[in-house]
Amino acid sequence: MALRNVKLTIAYDGSEYHGWQIQPGFTTVQQAVQDAARSLLGPNVRVCGASRTDAGVHALGQVGLIQIDSPVPTENLARALTDRLPDDIAIVKAEEVRMGFDVIGEVTRKLYRYTIFCGPTRPVLHRRYCWHVPSNPDVAAMDAGAKLLVGRDDFKSFASAADSRIDSVRTIFRCDVTEARNDGDRWVYVEVEGDGFLYNMVRNIVGSLMEVGLGRWEPERIGRTLEARDRTAAGPIAPPNGLCLMWIEY
Amino acid sequence: MALRNVKLTIAYDGSEYHGWQIQPGFTTVQQAVQDAARSLLGPNVRVCGASRTDAGVHALGQVGLIQIDSPVPTENLARALTDRLPDDIAIVKAEEVRMGFDVIGEVTRKLYRYTIFCGPTRPVLHRRYCWHVPSNPDVAAMDAGAKLLVGRDDFKSFASAADSRIDSVRTIFRCDVTEARNDGDRWVYVEVEGDGFLYNMVRNIVGSLMEVGLGRWEPERIGRTLEARDRTAAGPIAPPNGLCLMWIEY
Repeated sequence: MALRNVKLTIAYDGSEYHGWQIQPGFTTVQQAVQDAARSLLGPNVRVCGASRTDAGVHALGQVGLIQIDSPVPTENLARALTDRLPDDIAIVKAEEVRMGFDVIGEVTRKLYRYTIFCGPTRPVLHRRYCWHVPSNPDVAAMDAGAKLLVGRDDFKSFASAADSRIDSVRTIFRCDVTEARNDGDRWVYVEVEGDGFLYNMVRNIVGSLMEVGLGRWEPERIGRTLEARDRTAAGPIAPPNGLCLMWIEY
Repeated sequence: MALRNVKLTIAYDGSEYHGWQIQPGFTTVQQAVQDAARSLLGPNVRVCGASRTDAGVHALGQVGLIQIDSPVPTENLARALTDRLPDDIAIVKAEEVRMGFDVIGEVTRKLYRYTIFCGPTRPVLHRRYCWHVPSNPDVAAMDAGAKLLVGRDDFKSFASAADSRIDSVRTIFRCDVTEARNDGDRWVYVEVEGDGFLYNMVRNIVGSLMEVGLGRWEPERIGRTLEARDRTAAGPIAPPNGLCLMWIEY
């Protein structure tokens, strides 16, 4: 049987997982997907992921790659794998890609979306999927700060100290802060589209933008933080549960 | 200190609870709210609820009543109780009502909303709050069936066998089936507003309307089911997690 390279689009609620990446002794999404793939396709299947999402972070468009020599048709894979996964993970799509496809190296763009709920009362039905800020942030000021992050730059100031990557230059194509009102509730969204992200980068950006929203920072301080190339310059990190990896483009 | 009668508006994610009502040996919402009230206000406080929601059913507007003689001002109660509750329950509002207020007997209207997700892939971020029907139901036909339920009638056909109430006559003021599309996703909502509901009544109505939506029943069969006054005439019961008690009016 010919070996096939199959790209999986994966959605998950990260609440119950220690992030994407396999770590011995922890429940991770990569492990769950790999276990499902092995039960369907054979004991040697390995799943490689495009993004290492943190504990508690969600995804609607994570990408994983598997090499298989099973007779299961590609068009049946998404359903068959989803049936073998816990109900907080689903395979949205499975498609054959050329051998040699590099699931990390060939990424051109990713979109992360961060959701904030602004209201006095804890949003019980959304608490797993948003950051509750019981205040009234200035979204126009946050968006003005966000615009200072667009472009190719060294994002070291917004990386976590745990990031081991040497090159901290990334391109941000778009960074928008918007809001929606619904029955008196107020939702704020931060969308960041870039060619790649450092460890904790989006959460550090959102935490800093919230300093602007709450009036503690002028919007210009976002630009100065970026220029500082200093991890201690950023604001407090935003919690993981508001973050969702929306899609990855190749 | 004068005794006060305080009406609480309560929101909860019912996923982790065996329903509202206190049952020895089970985790229930009423128990959690009563525990929080006792820790704040004293060991004899009892919480009476307006609606006995089932295991897995959610609420944005459940109503509970407590009698207190504590010095805590009414305007601080919602916040102070919420601080003592697990993060899937919140007190949205606390307001003083006259002594003698009957939290069950004085209800004039309630609104339940049922959420259905129609799409091929399991909605991982919404799975706790909707019924996943991977199909394409006919919403106009469902709504035509729903309209046959409006009015004052005997709803015995849509009650669960476990309902012990003798009088099964209720008034449905409004029953609407609507849909919303969002990024290719399709959501269907069933809203039922009535002066009261029998045990499992909304879930039995939704299950029957889905028979219509999937083309197994003609819309008219909803009317015939109602007229049958026979519990075996209804369609299969819809799962609890799609259901939410939106508000209760007095």
